[in-house]
Amino acid sequence: MTVQSISDLGEVGIIRLIQGKVSQKLPSYVKKGIDDDCAVLETPGDKVLLVTTDTLVEGVHFTNQTLSPEALGWKALAVNISDIAAMGGTPRTALLSIGLKTNSKVSFLESFMAGFNALAEKTGIVLAGGDTVESPSLVLITITLLGDCLPGSVVYRSGARVGDDVWVTGPLGNAAGGLFVLQGKQSGASSGYEPLVRAHQKPMPPLDVGKALGGSGLAHAMIDISDGIAKDLGHVCEQSGVGAVLRAASIPMSSQLLRLAAEAEKEALQWALHGGEDYELLFTASTADREKVESVTAELSGMAAVKVGTIMRDDGILLEKQRVRVPLESGGYFHFCK
Amino acid sequence: MTVQSISDLGEVGIIRLIQGKVSQKLPSYVKKGIDDDCAVLETPGDKVLLVTTDTLVEGVHFTNQTLSPEALGWKALAVNISDIAAMGGTPRTALLSIGLKTNSKVSFLESFMAGFNALAEKTGIVLAGGDTVESPSLVLITITLLGDCLPGSVVYRSGARVGDDVWVTGPLGNAAGGLFVLQGKQSGASSGYEPLVRAHQKPMPPLDVGKALGGSGLAHAMIDISDGIAKDLGHVCEQSGVGAVLRAASIPMSSQLLRLAAEAEKEALQWALHGGEDYELLFTASTADREKVESVTAELSGMAAVKVGTIMRDDGILLEKQRVRVPLESGGYFHFCK
Repeated sequence: MTVQSISDLGEVGIIRLIQGKVSQKLPSYVKKGIDDDCAVLETPGDKVLLVTTDTLVEGVHFTNQTLSPEALGWKALAVNISDIAAMGGTPRTALLSIGLKTNSKVSFLESFMAGFNALAEKTGIVLAGGDTVESPSLVLITITLLGDCLPGSVVYRSGARVGDDVWVTGPLGNAAGGLFVLQGKQSGASSGYEPLVRAHQKPMPPLDVGKALGGSGLAHAMIDISDGIAKDLGHVCEQSGVGAVLRAASIPMSSQLLRLAAEAEKEALQWALHGGEDYELLFTASTADREKVESVTAELSGMAAVKVGTIMRDDGILLEKQRVRVPLESGGYFHFCK
Repeated sequence: MTVQSISDLGEVGIIRLIQGKVSQKLPSYVKKGIDDDCAVLETPGDKVLLVTTDTLVEGVHFTNQTLSPEALGWKALAVNISDIAAMGGTPRTALLSIGLKTNSKVSFLESFMAGFNALAEKTGIVLAGGDTVESPSLVLITITLLGDCLPGSVVYRSGARVGDDVWVTGPLGNAAGGLFVLQGKQSGASSGYEPLVRAHQKPMPPLDVGKALGGSGLAHAMIDISDGIAKDLGHVCEQSGVGAVLRAASIPMSSQLLRLAAEAEKEALQWALHGGEDYELLFTASTADREKVESVTAELSGMAAVKVGTIMRDDGILLEKQRVRVPLESGGYFHFCK
């Protein structure tokens, strides 16, 4: 008998283990617990409270090569905003727990805060507390973000219906392409890739679009694309008890990503499907609402959402490529894999 | 001109820097921001929301010598409960962000969750979300805890009044003594120190006492003793714009701590003043309420709170020892010091 290590379990196994250990009888004020982008808590007021927390660890989520201190401050907040956006909510209040090395420069913290504040001000978020700790060898950032939403406007992962269109709010794969550039892996010219680098370093979650999709009732299910569409669509399908077909030719990719892929002899589609960290939204909506979805999203973000697939009755996700459908491996970013 | 490092700044300097970088115009719903044990947020309901977050980092806050995985799960939650207790509130909902090494054992996570759940069930806390990440070399735990309180019952650090008695809810120094034992530093017999070890590993914050002191209006100011009474009383004095005198002979210390100090040729008072991690409460109250304070605390915890000093007009904290008053150095646990 071998002793199981965390890497044998994988991220999903870890979450299952934690879920299995906590009481399954949630009190009624908890409208949603572990299974979604945010916890959803009923309050005595007319809105529900949304709460999310995300940790970034040096060497796993970033290095000083891939994120400047300022970009780190921005991104650490952005990944949490993305979770609020994915519920259709409005972010309000942040807590920042920061673990710094004793030899970190003061200028590191100043730049980090500048990046954090730039995005906080843009999105009306208030920093109301936190914790500062020493970390022996790695910079650690955990942000907890509180937001709110009218109860009827919250969009869960679990609402996808058979026949729904599957939409994404923006191009996919840019963040993965940007990371590739930042890691110095591209062989050709490095100019012209700024949009990819920006997508990796300073994502801007489509908050207004998320709110509009929730408030209008157009989105039946929603999730942010943090781990790659293959994996994140998998979460929606699992929570909704449905399957999906994803059309490769429909997946929006930027011209810069296609050029980078050609130069680096990589397949852009792989970045788009599995790269992760795009922080766009994936949502499902009724086929009857196609025009409304396009006009609402175009009006708010300047780019209409793109229909990339259909929710199906059967389990699993199929990738349709040149009229052939094959099961899509959910090869997104997995923590804890060897 | 030398480049300042974080260790030059120290923990207080870091918090000041962060505070200086965020907007000073807090929206009116934020009743309390960075300066207290919890953020206090107004809600549309009849209660305010309390939010706190604390991070524990392997090698800084614990090692596998000082905390078993089960004790880590308990303590990571306890330190957050302590912050809610220090406001007079009731803890409700937790988010757990856990960073695990890929070679961590599954049994580590199972034991961690057992310790977490034992305390969560005892205190009625629900785990409603979180994050799981890979950490290259250190186990990382960040817990965010939400609670609530009637607005008039919240006790801030800033409410101490000149002439108030200064009270503590239990013996001090036990956790530091326990850490000393756990690190194998004591030379004599290791038996009989279980209460000290328990104080370090599985603190039980006096939640009911905190609630009663807030709800009754007896406590004017309150803080949890996480960094040592010298430092934590300093926070109360600073926030309240007062000073204090602390009477060495009044500080409650356990017989086990006194025995350990004698055997190890250490000064027990130093552990009590500066050791930290006791997670008792320090509060101030009117001298007219002495009997009420004693009866309320004795009834709820089995041990009456102990009067250890007096709030004074002047700045700074004096330690009165054998009728001589000397300035008390706030030598509690400082993160980021060389």
